[in-house]
Amino acid sequence: MYSNKQTLLSLFQEKQGTFLSGQAIADNLGCSRTAIWKYIDSLKKDGYEIEAVRNKGYRLVDQPNLVKEYEIQRDLHTKTLGKKVYYHDTVTSTQKIAHELAGQGAQEGTLVIADQQESGRGRMDRQWYSPKGTGVWMSLILRPKLLPTQTPQFTLLTAVAVAQSIEEVTGITPDIKWPNDLLIRGKKCTGILTELQAEADQVRYMIIGIGINVNQDASDFPEELQEIATSLKMVKKQEIPRAKLVQEILRRLEKLYDLYIQLGFEPIKLLWESYSTTIGKTINARTMNRNIVGKAIGLSHDGVLLLEDEEGVQHRIYSADIS
Amino acid sequence: MYSNKQTLLSLFQEKQGTFLSGQAIADNLGCSRTAIWKYIDSLKKDGYEIEAVRNKGYRLVDQPNLVKEYEIQRDLHTKTLGKKVYYHDTVTSTQKIAHELAGQGAQEGTLVIADQQESGRGRMDRQWYSPKGTGVWMSLILRPKLLPTQTPQFTLLTAVAVAQSIEEVTGITPDIKWPNDLLIRGKKCTGILTELQAEADQVRYMIIGIGINVNQDASDFPEELQEIATSLKMVKKQEIPRAKLVQEILRRLEKLYDLYIQLGFEPIKLLWESYSTTIGKTINARTMNRNIVGKAIGLSHDGVLLLEDEEGVQHRIYSADIS
Repeated sequence: MYSNKQTLLSLFQEKQGTFLSGQAIADNLGCSRTAIWKYIDSLKKDGYEIEAVRNKGYRLVDQPNLVKEYEIQRDLHTKTLGKKVYYHDTVTSTQKIAHELAGQGAQEGTLVIADQQESGRGRMDRQWYSPKGTGVWMSLILRPKLLPTQTPQFTLLTAVAVAQSIEEVTGITPDIKWPNDLLIRGKKCTGILTELQAEADQVRYMIIGIGINVNQDASDFPEELQEIATSLKMVKKQEIPRAKLVQEILRRLEKLYDLYIQLGFEPIKLLWESYSTTIGKTINARTMNRNIVGKAIGLSHDGVLLLEDEEGVQHRIYSADIS
Repeated sequence: MYSNKQTLLSLFQEKQGTFLSGQAIADNLGCSRTAIWKYIDSLKKDGYEIEAVRNKGYRLVDQPNLVKEYEIQRDLHTKTLGKKVYYHDTVTSTQKIAHELAGQGAQEGTLVIADQQESGRGRMDRQWYSPKGTGVWMSLILRPKLLPTQTPQFTLLTAVAVAQSIEEVTGITPDIKWPNDLLIRGKKCTGILTELQAEADQVRYMIIGIGINVNQDASDFPEELQEIATSLKMVKKQEIPRAKLVQEILRRLEKLYDLYIQLGFEPIKLLWESYSTTIGKTINARTMNRNIVGKAIGLSHDGVLLLEDEEGVQHRIYSADIS
């Protein structure tokens, strides 16, 4: 069903709004005209507006902005990421479902994505507001051969991949706030949550949670978020196709992942620093034990944030809230 | 039920094989003589041999070598570790059950212990042979405020706690083979598996799996293990009380855990090195990517094994099989 809906959509896309005959579709999909009617009907139910005219065939008039399996996998062309997609209309949290799937042995690259999360989670179990139909709420299962020590590097890598993807799809260049918040004009549009299950010296699986505010209007945010959050639509002043953004993220993440495995953290470090709004600034880092004020002078070769305080002492920041 | 069985056993223990009147027991437990009979009967079913003589009372003649809840919690005196114990006669693996419990929010210090594991696991998903009634097969849930980066240090800490406990209970001093195998006369008696679930910069929970060959005879080991494995009984030439060993581990682990949180890794490093059979030797370390041959010169201040090769170059070994 999914792969036929994918093909059908690709056919419509090629035709760019002109008619496609029932026979042409039947030939392409290798199925009966009754079966075609079933796929058309299913697309209509998903919100696609398809016109049917006797002796002319079918024409795609308008499409909804969805993140269903077939929309993400259509013309995706990745090797592993997104090869398996679990779409849900509503979930508690995609992260939770991804953990369950990973525990059951789900393969590397498995994607869990939802149109709405009822209790989306960010770092440190903070709530992540994930209203219906407006954002990208996704969790990706990876099984990299890494030490648990290296996962903070992977967190930085993910921030770069998402920043590149937003740039590619919208033309907007987001800033990365250490370690992995994406901001546009100082307001947060993306949060990333990296979780792992591991032995002391080997990662068993990693779950990369990505939440992007895509098509919210200002009034869609609860009051307490209005000052600090933004969406891509609010900045770009037009609706952004969510599936396209997800596809771009999967492609970019796969490329950077390959790069990282082959060449290590150095190229990722350079990319991350190019998006960073933290480096060069004097910041306050609240770690588990204390506050450190200093100038962020860069990342270490292994991905730790380096702060230089007033007395010229360098501090390695592994984990902190910064402001 | 458990707490009354605990108290009853402690009373018997105090009396050291002499009779305890039904009235004395009833006074101590604050329950009826019918209830006492129920506890006595339950102990008998667990394998305790209790003699009942009219007008004299009850006498503990012999006790089985068990690791049930009430035997572990009796006179344990820890603050957190083992405050909650889940005992099972047979499980697939205590580690698996501990993960489930931790996922459901089980508190720090929760212990899962079994008399037998059907598919016990060691590091890298290797099998761990765990036959009925002979070993200590346990998994402990901890929720330390640590970076994932620090968990290898906790693995070394656990090895020290178990080594100290074996020493205390049996008088035998085991060697630690990096990172956390315990050997006696070159044969393995204990394996430790540290697993964690974490955010990139914060441990959510840690599961410490400990498997100790306690009361096996040589012939109890499958042939492929006979050359490389040993049990405490085989070395000591007498049966070792398993619950006592578990209690000692919980106490030692709690002490070292406190020490680590207060003073950091330095004291743990010194203790670990004192048991180590690796330091000072020329070893072959097979890491994920390559083999390194060199002299183990010690642990770094953060718990990484330092190898010096023939050319005097120092290597930091995070993860490897060594021989």
